[in-house]
Amino acid sequence: MSRIKKCTGSLSRVIAARLAPGCDLAESIETIAEEENITSGVILSGAASLRKAVLRNVGSFPGKFPITDDVRVFLTRTDPLELLALSGNISTREGSLHLHCHAVVSSGEEDGRAYGGHLMKGTEIFSTGEIVLAEITGCEMIRLEDPETKSAELHFQ
Amino acid sequence: MSRIKKCTGSLSRVIAARLAPGCDLAESIETIAEEENITSGVILSGAASLRKAVLRNVGSFPGKFPITDDVRVFLTRTDPLELLALSGNISTREGSLHLHCHAVVSSGEEDGRAYGGHLMKGTEIFSTGEIVLAEITGCEMIRLEDPETKSAELHFQ
Amino acid sequence: MSRIKKCTGSLSRVIAARLAPGCDLAESIETIAEEENITSGVILSGAASLRKAVLRNVGSFPGKFPITDDVRVFLTRTDPLELLALSGNISTREGSLHLHCHAVVSSGEEDGRAYGGHLMKGTEIFSTGEIVLAEITGCEMIRLEDPETKSAELHFQ
Repeated sequence: MSRIKKCTGSLSRVIAARLAPGCDLAESIETIAEEENITSGVILSGAASLRKAVLRNVGSFPGKFPITDDVRVFLTRTDPLELLALSGNISTREGSLHLHCHAVVSSGEEDGRAYGGHLMKGTEIFSTGEIVLAEITGCEMIRLEDPETKSAELHFQ
Repeated sequence: MSRIKKCTGSLSRVIAARLAPGCDLAESIETIAEEENITSGVILSGAASLRKAVLRNVGSFPGKFPITDDVRVFLTRTDPLELLALSGNISTREGSLHLHCHAVVSSGEEDGRAYGGHLMKGTEIFSTGEIVLAEITGCEMIRLEDPETKSAELHFQ
Repeated sequence: MSRIKKCTGSLSRVIAARLAPGCDLAESIETIAEEENITSGVILSGAASLRKAVLRNVGSFPGKFPITDDVRVFLTRTDPLELLALSGNISTREGSLHLHCHAVVSSGEEDGRAYGGHLMKGTEIFSTGEIVLAEITGCEMIRLEDPETKSAELHFQ
């Protein structure tokens, strides 16, 4: 079986959004997708200033899949940060919307040094958040439990 | 009032561009948008090598909005850098084109460590710059003074 | 002659893909493009977990073009990494598919610190890789030897 699963579609609706101070970045993207009824989509752009970032990385390889919180490193920063890049997608998992997103941020405290990880809830807009996402049509993106990674991975149908 | 403002459109024209050595990255994107008459758009991709980067971050929270240069940290680097990601959009402010862009760069001096911030003019291409941007139609993106942040924030009409 | 070369097209097919553990990131994107016969395209999104990253930066300015391996710094990491952003494009060079891609990754070992550079072959998926790329039509992207940089730079026809 191929190690690459893929699906061909096209971009249909594009949503540009502006998030006000205090908005939760991940929750806001989920709200937008829900309100617009987008179940398969891609984040095209994210630029923002943040007052709080909650990010997750993997600190060491687990002995076997799945990756669990035992080996994860959770990072919470509360200094002013610029959101530099936001990569991810929107799918559904057991019928509910699922956002998967990775973020890069920079800190003024360390002269622009960049940090990043899996975007967690709790990440908050400082002055503004500018997001563009697009619906993918012709390609239904769903999360199904994967026998290899023991996690809900992206599938297409 | 909702803390999320949004607008639904679609991508129409896509411009791929190659910038030669010495081009100013921000000014070149503005030139492309002006020549193509793109007033609402999104940066889809940016990969380049740079000989100079001028970036801006926020060093400490201001007592109140707006964010001013008093609390900002300006970073100028003149070592060889790779532009790793470019996120942002094109709108108009009082009828003039406005580019808002955040950049991630890496340095060979520190074994690939990444830095970033708000992209400023003065950032120069070293060998090549490869940019893809897209026009958003059906959604007019404009900057208006925001009563909360006291800055020109993204609005849609 | 203008220092900015550009071309106007539109996005047609969009390919979403999921890469399984052990896939080579760069080779997988090339495989997808080849199988789908995409000769001009842009990476819209990349989020993944990695078990190995091979990245290239420029350590010092060469006396003259071209940039060669003498001044480059090659970085190989084998700790668990998150792929945070992937920027680049697909073109052809002498009739063969050519992927040009820059990557940002973060490490759990150093609390989310970010690294990056030119994506090299050898970069391997740990648990999953989620990629979205789009075909650009109306704009043929090819690599031709450039008399100024002495490298194969992006041209349009």
